[in-house]
Amino acid sequence: MQRIINDPEQVVEDMLAGFVRTHADLVAPTDNPRVIKYAKAPIPGKVGVVTGGGSGHKPAFIGYIGRNMVDAVAVGEIFSSPTAKAFYDAFKAADSGKGVACLYGNYAGDNMNVKMAIELAKEDGIEVKTVVANDDVPSAPKTERAKRRGVAGEVLMWKIGGAMAARGGSLDEVIRVAQKAIDNTRSIGIGLTPCTIPAVGKPNFTIEAGTMEVGIGHHGEPGIQVCELKTADEMAEMMLDVVLPDLPFAGNDQVVALVSGLGATPVMELYILFNKVAEMLGREGITIYRSYVGNYFTSLEMMGVTLTLMKLDDELKLLVDEEAESMGLKQFKR
Amino acid sequence: MQRIINDPEQVVEDMLAGFVRTHADLVAPTDNPRVIKYAKAPIPGKVGVVTGGGSGHKPAFIGYIGRNMVDAVAVGEIFSSPTAKAFYDAFKAADSGKGVACLYGNYAGDNMNVKMAIELAKEDGIEVKTVVANDDVPSAPKTERAKRRGVAGEVLMWKIGGAMAARGGSLDEVIRVAQKAIDNTRSIGIGLTPCTIPAVGKPNFTIEAGTMEVGIGHHGEPGIQVCELKTADEMAEMMLDVVLPDLPFAGNDQVVALVSGLGATPVMELYILFNKVAEMLGREGITIYRSYVGNYFTSLEMMGVTLTLMKLDDELKLLVDEEAESMGLKQFKR
Repeated sequence: MQRIINDPEQVVEDMLAGFVRTHADLVAPTDNPRVIKYAKAPIPGKVGVVTGGGSGHKPAFIGYIGRNMVDAVAVGEIFSSPTAKAFYDAFKAADSGKGVACLYGNYAGDNMNVKMAIELAKEDGIEVKTVVANDDVPSAPKTERAKRRGVAGEVLMWKIGGAMAARGGSLDEVIRVAQKAIDNTRSIGIGLTPCTIPAVGKPNFTIEAGTMEVGIGHHGEPGIQVCELKTADEMAEMMLDVVLPDLPFAGNDQVVALVSGLGATPVMELYILFNKVAEMLGREGITIYRSYVGNYFTSLEMMGVTLTLMKLDDELKLLVDEEAESMGLKQFKR
Repeated sequence: MQRIINDPEQVVEDMLAGFVRTHADLVAPTDNPRVIKYAKAPIPGKVGVVTGGGSGHKPAFIGYIGRNMVDAVAVGEIFSSPTAKAFYDAFKAADSGKGVACLYGNYAGDNMNVKMAIELAKEDGIEVKTVVANDDVPSAPKTERAKRRGVAGEVLMWKIGGAMAARGGSLDEVIRVAQKAIDNTRSIGIGLTPCTIPAVGKPNFTIEAGTMEVGIGHHGEPGIQVCELKTADEMAEMMLDVVLPDLPFAGNDQVVALVSGLGATPVMELYILFNKVAEMLGREGITIYRSYVGNYFTSLEMMGVTLTLMKLDDELKLLVDEEAESMGLKQFKR
């Protein structure tokens, strides 16, 4: 395990300390060491935007804290849900009295702990509503969409929800657009190598050299197909073949395209894949309104890539155009 | 080789196509397929800032094209110098009649090709002056500083030179501050794994599991020590032990600290290392004026990290504070 860590049991603490030090102009610690907040949160008169999830997905989740984005994040262990207490404390850190939109991904632990946290918050008079991201197409059939996992599409959900909150939207308005964002979003991942949780010390799944796993989840959850390693162009085609018919996306659509590396794949290769994605979308008559290529939602040192498309309407365009500032959103500043 | 590519001989072409498509608001192709320029270059009345180098170091070099940064980049094959023609065409793409500052790294091929390109440009009446980055401390003794390689400190050199050009500085002024920037900058890298040039198909050097190479270069050039893999804290100490006495940095100094991953190291781990760097600098009485932690200058899918420190004076502070916009510079926007 060729890693830059100290005590494998302390990687989250050590990482958070370095993160807060580096981005002291943007984020701040809270009394709960597992809750990081926007330096200016809570912002009077603004709906609070909260998310949370396991660590190891940098820049997700804490990298999306910032101006017009996420106000507070509950931080879990590597690949593990934050506690209910952490979600609850994140709600408190974000709430200015206008309520909290908790926009998170569909994982059993997160669902359970968010639910408990909402009960705790209710006793404090903090109103919390949720949107549960389920953009990962291969994780369940379309007829069981509620079972699908949330993956890199969460970034777009936070962007849209954060923009509506920044524009003074009510809690119901923030929830409505965040739900619309994720309903219009579809993702798929391809894994090329496994990854290793430092405290475990060895991979918890395998991908043989010369093969790839299509539809893999952000924690190595099994995909829909293991096959011979393809070219970048073939990967782009396979991904679009899954994603496009699911919404479905169609000619004249305008979309956001987000290509994220899974951690160890050189960014150079993401551009190679994106090039084919753009060409194929063009052939379908689908216009890329905005593209993001880089490491937006990763899985430790996994090699691989995810593709996310979000179909836009006029309202979503307006919101995606809203300025935003956060460590993970380098290309979202207009 | 678990990579997302098409023809291994065409990775640079494919990557450039995807890059230009993704960042069409910021960069533009030129008649020379191996020269990418700032969309608005040449900017009338502004000194042109040019760099160039081998591919495989993303976001370097093309990721630093942008507003108040680099105007044009000559692009080489993976880990190979751009041609003299590419440098020459980059000079032409950047020049508005005020001359061109070519700010590049100290590698034999680049030195030779820049020199030839300057001769070609002279015939066109384009004045080109150079600063050659040599911030990599382990690559030669202090008494032979001119032999040292340029590494991640180049990013800071471009930032400073780009800022002076943006403020209307003359060619001599841009060269002066870029030279001051690199003279005040020291770097060191630690490699944890080798990397593989796609067209070669296997690593061109080895780092045994359980070991690390201190002082490794950006192309796997041998370091000063191969030793057992250390903790992040110990790595930070080893790096500072080399970097601090070389300038030397001392109490009351104000510095920029840049921690860059080498490609496949999770960003989480860079924060862990940075945390110790910040703690140790604090103990020395050295103040971090600005910190950058992320993938700023990489080596394909190598695991590892580089540390760069630049000592600031009032002029450098002013220039580092100048706004800048580029794909690689997410944290340089103030």
